[in-house]
Amino acid sequence: MSNDDQELGITESKSYSPGDWYAEVVLKAGLADYAPMGGFIVTRPRGYALWEGLQDHLDGWFKETGAQNAYFPALIPESYLERESDIVEGFDPEVAWVTHGGHDELDERLAFRPTSESIITPFMSQWVRSHRDLPLRLNQWCSVIRWEATDTKPFFRTKEFLWQEGHTAHETEEEAWDETMTRLEQYQRVFEEVLAIPVMPGRKPEHDKFPGADTTTTVEALMPDGKSVQGATSHYLGQGFAEAYDLYFTDENEDERVAHTTSWGLSWRALGALIMTHSDEQGFVCPPTLAPEQVVIVPIWQEENREEVLSYAEGIAEDLEEAGVRVELDDRDERNPGFKFNEWELKGVPVRFEIGPHEVEDDEITVVHRPDGENVVEDRADIAETVEDHFDAVFDKMYEAAEENLEDNIREADSRADILGTIGQHGGYVKTAWCGDEDCEAEIKDQISAEIVMVPLDRDEEPCGDECSICGDEAEETAYFAKSY
Amino acid sequence: MSNDDQELGITESKSYSPGDWYAEVVLKAGLADYAPMGGFIVTRPRGYALWEGLQDHLDGWFKETGAQNAYFPALIPESYLERESDIVEGFDPEVAWVTHGGHDELDERLAFRPTSESIITPFMSQWVRSHRDLPLRLNQWCSVIRWEATDTKPFFRTKEFLWQEGHTAHETEEEAWDETMTRLEQYQRVFEEVLAIPVMPGRKPEHDKFPGADTTTTVEALMPDGKSVQGATSHYLGQGFAEAYDLYFTDENEDERVAHTTSWGLSWRALGALIMTHSDEQGFVCPPTLAPEQVVIVPIWQEENREEVLSYAEGIAEDLEEAGVRVELDDRDERNPGFKFNEWELKGVPVRFEIGPHEVEDDEITVVHRPDGENVVEDRADIAETVEDHFDAVFDKMYEAAEENLEDNIREADSRADILGTIGQHGGYVKTAWCGDEDCEAEIKDQISAEIVMVPLDRDEEPCGDECSICGDEAEETAYFAKSY
Ligand SMILES: [Zn+2]
Ligand SMILES: [Zn+2]
Repeated sequence: MSNDDQELGITESKSYSPGDWYAEVVLKAGLADYAPMGGFIVTRPRGYALWEGLQDHLDGWFKETGAQNAYFPALIPESYLERESDIVEGFDPEVAWVTHGGHDELDERLAFRPTSESIITPFMSQWVRSHRDLPLRLNQWCSVIRWEATDTKPFFRTKEFLWQEGHTAHETEEEAWDETMTRLEQYQRVFEEVLAIPVMPGRKPEHDKFPGADTTTTVEALMPDGKSVQGATSHYLGQGFAEAYDLYFTDENEDERVAHTTSWGLSWRALGALIMTHSDEQGFVCPPTLAPEQVVIVPIWQEENREEVLSYAEGIAEDLEEAGVRVELDDRDERNPGFKFNEWELKGVPVRFEIGPHEVEDDEITVVHRPDGENVVEDRADIAETVEDHFDAVFDKMYEAAEENLEDNIREADSRADILGTIGQHGGYVKTAWCGDEDCEAEIKDQISAEIVMVPLDRDEEPCGDECSICGDEAEETAYFAKSY
Repeated sequence: MSNDDQELGITESKSYSPGDWYAEVVLKAGLADYAPMGGFIVTRPRGYALWEGLQDHLDGWFKETGAQNAYFPALIPESYLERESDIVEGFDPEVAWVTHGGHDELDERLAFRPTSESIITPFMSQWVRSHRDLPLRLNQWCSVIRWEATDTKPFFRTKEFLWQEGHTAHETEEEAWDETMTRLEQYQRVFEEVLAIPVMPGRKPEHDKFPGADTTTTVEALMPDGKSVQGATSHYLGQGFAEAYDLYFTDENEDERVAHTTSWGLSWRALGALIMTHSDEQGFVCPPTLAPEQVVIVPIWQEENREEVLSYAEGIAEDLEEAGVRVELDDRDERNPGFKFNEWELKGVPVRFEIGPHEVEDDEITVVHRPDGENVVEDRADIAETVEDHFDAVFDKMYEAAEENLEDNIREADSRADILGTIGQHGGYVKTAWCGDEDCEAEIKDQISAEIVMVPLDRDEEPCGDECSICGDEAEETAYFAKSY
């Protein structure tokens, strides 16, 4: 949108109304808009560029570790969904159904994919004959629809969302479990090394697993408002899906065996976490790893030195471009530098170069960091190298702030009252000993809408107390309670 | 699929049953499979890799020329489609309708996008205020559904297909027309420089334009069986869509004006053309520009020289990899070289290196070209450079064969009988003078299922005869008749 006739600044407060603030940042930074149908959004180029950046990283890692991209139909026959009973129970209430093709009613309803195990596993079964065809690792980047009747929150909660879904088949439980962990580690890495967000890897409690899964692992990210985001999940599916969809193979002894499968997905919710974590009351803050423009150069001239300043700025832009830096030179005549500063801050460009007559004279550049406004004067020479240090510095600041938020907000509690009080007062994660019974979670959920977002990955880890803090029965594991997105 | 228990070779004849042969190549080369729902396919990793390769090229060119990627919802409210009457008339018979979300019937049906003008143009209208917001160039890579009741032909004819759709808005007709041509030229380039297929740029006759368009331009490719494929289309939409969806802007004089829009799309049908054009009775033939493996190295050893041959082959593979060549070393013990040759020929790898004890001894490599089996002995040294010449040579052979097919199959005709006879006997394109009346096309279509696939781009070009070859009225333009996919 032209900014001529609208307020540039963010008017909502991140601390006091984080939901409204978040929506305002998304809209005003030009990342997304609401679609006419409730629950859908339009991803604008600046938002989509973030998704492309994230894809570039993750897709490369997937391919390095044996996954191949493919594309399966967006529509899945109802009878295919029904072949795995947990899948149909889990997803049936939120499926968008295609019932008509042109003017004709279809013989069988088709689901817009809510997830693709039920169409991918039957094809794996066709493609796999012997152990030599395993492991088989497929991935697709696509959109899915889950018709949940909730408020739309761009990237966090939308009926249609972009994601990738990986689906693999293996000879043994051990190999499938390794795969599950490999993908979880890649998700942790993309959060920590690309999005600048530390995450906690864990396991979902039994009652909150992916439908049909043996184990659901997760990476959880803590938002500044104290709520947890499920950043991505990686499921060890056991043999249930393979059995439901006839995924057998002959082993080295020519015996027929059932494969072990996994699935793993990361959605554009990761972008929601990115925006929510780092942005501020000037707008979006984006790490240099993903920013469509890593550097914006704002020349500051008077009539008498305009040419000189501009040509100095252009030389710098050329140097950066040559070095592969994504740089924008904002040489618009009709805007003053202050307006430009605000606009690029709103849009989240991590590093700003200010170039005025003084900089030209001294062969220098004033470098400003978006997250905290710190500014440093650098030599003009070698700027294409120096700027990389600034990218690292900006990234580290962002990561450290998020890490501090996480570290400060993991607390222990040892009674129902303590859990409720701690989450009520501070938000964040509350670690507590838990018996494993969903009813005990329900007591907390009913009172304060917090749930068990994860338990430790290691099933053998000793619980942090002997007795369940809620019912007093013997504790089975440590539960992490939090409110969540 | 494991090839253990299935026939490796292609059994159908390209000349005598091109349809069956095509389907067999697609299936056996592992490019795609039929989905359980008629009209849908599953794109397997080797097929999807071709799409990714094509995307890499085209997406880069789009971005260099100002297009930005975005993502709009897959579902479009019926009322949005209805706002442009040509769109609704053109697409309504082939829309897949979502009528239910979960257990509830929707208040308004939602169309799975058949094309996205009707959802993208209204958002452009929100984002464009003044001439400074123009041009606006958006593109999305996505899938669309068109519920046509036809036989499935993988990539050529499927109810769901992958494509990109570009949508742009401009101040003037001239700028919009330039955009239309820029995109058409990029399509021509991707066919000619990536797919190794010469195309003819042209214009669709008035009665065969995209619904609502002012002008539809096309690149047409001639298949070896004499049928034409519409390779991609680029539409100058005029002001009709902008008016229907309120896409106005204020010009430099603060006057409100209606924008001029374009849209342009290329689908995975381009992959269909690729497979159909170059493949043969040994299987798929792929140009080095797109091949997932550009080189396969097949070592040929006896027990006594196995180590020596393998280590020589590994060194070559390393050299190629280092130089950025996509190379596969087929060192499987359980297969003999003959089997490997057949398998990689089936899969379309353009260049094969054969490495036996003689090659090791003489520090050489036997290089074999997939399209024609030509083989050349090359020095081991500098192979990472030499191989690029082979890629060029293979590409040129493929292009030249397709070019020869095209050049040999454009014929002129000057009467109804001549048109019918020439297409009946030779297929290919028949150029003829045409009055511009759809009824004259219908006469040919009824008799021989050939239609006017294009007329010259230049509206002022003199027709190739004075009178319409069909009705004898004054000729308005030259028509290119052909059977088409
Ligand atoms: Zn308990
Ligand atoms: Zn006529």
